[in-house]
Amino acid sequence: MEYSQLNKIRTWLEEKQADVAYFSNFESIQYLTGFGSDPIERVLALFVFKDAQPFIFAPALEVEVVKQTGWPYDVYGYQDHENPFAMIADYIKKRTHNTNIWAIEKQTLTVDHLETLGQYFPQAQYNIDMTAYIQNMRLIKTPAEIAKLHQAGKDADFAMEVGFKAIAEGKTELQIAAELEYQSKLRGVTGMSFDTLIQAGAHAADPHGATSNLQIHRNELVLFDLGTLYQGYISDTSRTVAFGKPNQKALDVYQVVLEAQLTAQAAVKPGITAAQLDKIARDIITKAGYGKYFIHRLGHGMGTSEHEFPSIMEGNNLVLQSGMTFSIEPGIYIPGEVGVRIEDCVVVTTDGADTFTHTSKELKYIQ
Amino acid sequence: MEYSQLNKIRTWLEEKQADVAYFSNFESIQYLTGFGSDPIERVLALFVFKDAQPFIFAPALEVEVVKQTGWPYDVYGYQDHENPFAMIADYIKKRTHNTNIWAIEKQTLTVDHLETLGQYFPQAQYNIDMTAYIQNMRLIKTPAEIAKLHQAGKDADFAMEVGFKAIAEGKTELQIAAELEYQSKLRGVTGMSFDTLIQAGAHAADPHGATSNLQIHRNELVLFDLGTLYQGYISDTSRTVAFGKPNQKALDVYQVVLEAQLTAQAAVKPGITAAQLDKIARDIITKAGYGKYFIHRLGHGMGTSEHEFPSIMEGNNLVLQSGMTFSIEPGIYIPGEVGVRIEDCVVVTTDGADTFTHTSKELKYIQ
Repeated sequence: MEYSQLNKIRTWLEEKQADVAYFSNFESIQYLTGFGSDPIERVLALFVFKDAQPFIFAPALEVEVVKQTGWPYDVYGYQDHENPFAMIADYIKKRTHNTNIWAIEKQTLTVDHLETLGQYFPQAQYNIDMTAYIQNMRLIKTPAEIAKLHQAGKDADFAMEVGFKAIAEGKTELQIAAELEYQSKLRGVTGMSFDTLIQAGAHAADPHGATSNLQIHRNELVLFDLGTLYQGYISDTSRTVAFGKPNQKALDVYQVVLEAQLTAQAAVKPGITAAQLDKIARDIITKAGYGKYFIHRLGHGMGTSEHEFPSIMEGNNLVLQSGMTFSIEPGIYIPGEVGVRIEDCVVVTTDGADTFTHTSKELKYIQ
Repeated sequence: MEYSQLNKIRTWLEEKQADVAYFSNFESIQYLTGFGSDPIERVLALFVFKDAQPFIFAPALEVEVVKQTGWPYDVYGYQDHENPFAMIADYIKKRTHNTNIWAIEKQTLTVDHLETLGQYFPQAQYNIDMTAYIQNMRLIKTPAEIAKLHQAGKDADFAMEVGFKAIAEGKTELQIAAELEYQSKLRGVTGMSFDTLIQAGAHAADPHGATSNLQIHRNELVLFDLGTLYQGYISDTSRTVAFGKPNQKALDVYQVVLEAQLTAQAAVKPGITAAQLDKIARDIITKAGYGKYFIHRLGHGMGTSEHEFPSIMEGNNLVLQSGMTFSIEPGIYIPGEVGVRIEDCVVVTTDGADTFTHTSKELKYIQ
């Protein structure tokens, strides 16, 4: 890790005439320092100054882990019974007297933490939001990041293959998930990047449901949505397969989603906007008469998490550039009947896109 | 679900002379409505009014799921390209003109969401924090909740047993975790409540590390920390076992942690404070000379998550009452040498405590 992004932050602070950057989002901190861990209700923070050395403030539990990453600056810990913001204020005041103008991450910083901080710096202003700046910094992936995303994708293809083989009459969705997670972990995958989703038949029409004890039966579709972790980077892919012979409507829906996915993916290249890409897929689904059943955006940015920029949706006129990574995942969900989603994540290249996952998208029939 | 808590909220609003309660924490919403799902960067909200009917506002994806829970009031959805706070403001203004004084959850509400809301209600005040009120509401568990916690505990005992049996020379931590998660899911457990932690030998001295590809070797301790989900309620338990014959220091450390855990657990009863309980365990560890290696609080509240009240730590003078549920998990972590943690979660009864997990705490030797 070269920590060169910290210098960019410092330059940005100068441009904005700000004194302190307070990073509270653990994903931002991970990106900037190589150390990141969701502190839940505890406090994890990175402070970068216009005129002083940065420091990390973390639960005492984490201090050794931060040091092991090679972090070359100070790291301070606090224990559960201590007052973290009083300590933070002390450390800051020992470093610098310039603490008037703060840049914060408004999209993740809580009202409580901001108010508590404000008690120690009552004269300060907290109007500058860094959210978009740091998200844009993370938007263009480096070759090293892309290599990790490709490796995570390979693990996802493996997990998908295990899942397909595990399908059998009467098995539950959870049993299929258990099998593919088990085989993935035996292979050395350190974790899934989100709860594996397996949904059979009409259950797949609930695009936000969870893997359940529902049994899988012949002649229905089975939807898989899964992801793996590789050195802090994720994969995320969805496939829908046929167990036996699903009815004609299910097969029709599948072909519409497939066409939407393939067409949108083929359209990815530098210069197209996120909204245009969403529209390409949405128009195909709408023309086929299923527009009202495609009730989410086409895709989301991804990298160290699946909650990054760019959001591939109506209204986002961001021009896609080489190095951006995101999902392309059209879906049709007809309540009580059928649900289909097909998803690959891609990186924009100089003239198109590469996918991280390569499992075939032609409808797979499992007997 | 009887939704009787919503009436309490309304009464509380009247007492506080507030007009609107805006719940943004999905755990609070789950507690109050029976529906809860982490919206990540999307918006999920529950609004309760002094003088109008409540409503849930959710991603379009979730609307059907909310309806299926039996929620008897309105639920409104929004799609990714829509402006959620503009829609929320419209729905509110159609319901009531009394929107001057707001109660919010400062500990989880983001600065961005509050500022965005404020654009639509620029004259309003947002000074009332509901965080402590709602956390206190969740503090005393009902018999139905306690029954679920007991069932989750049984599943955790099962998982622990599977994990012990999976230990063998050369296996990795991840393989052990994979095995116990696999067998749990085959048994019908819908999910783990957090990432299963298996740490062998000196690795266990990092109390916030993660399960890794590290191989387990004979003559060291192996630490397990795991939890399962049952109908939205969690279990959480830790055991440390001996593989072969660990050295004398490891065995000594184990006995100190065991004494601290058993003594604190035996001291639980209505009337004792959270801080007193922490001190009972901490004094034993300190007297044995390991005080500086016990670097976290004794325990945390738990129920639908492991991030509830009461926090069992120095400085928390909360008097424990019947129906409160929390972990008792002393640990000693000597960097580079040994780590031991022993944990059960308990519910305070009329004269003591019941535990949710029952795996023996005497040091178990695995050959």
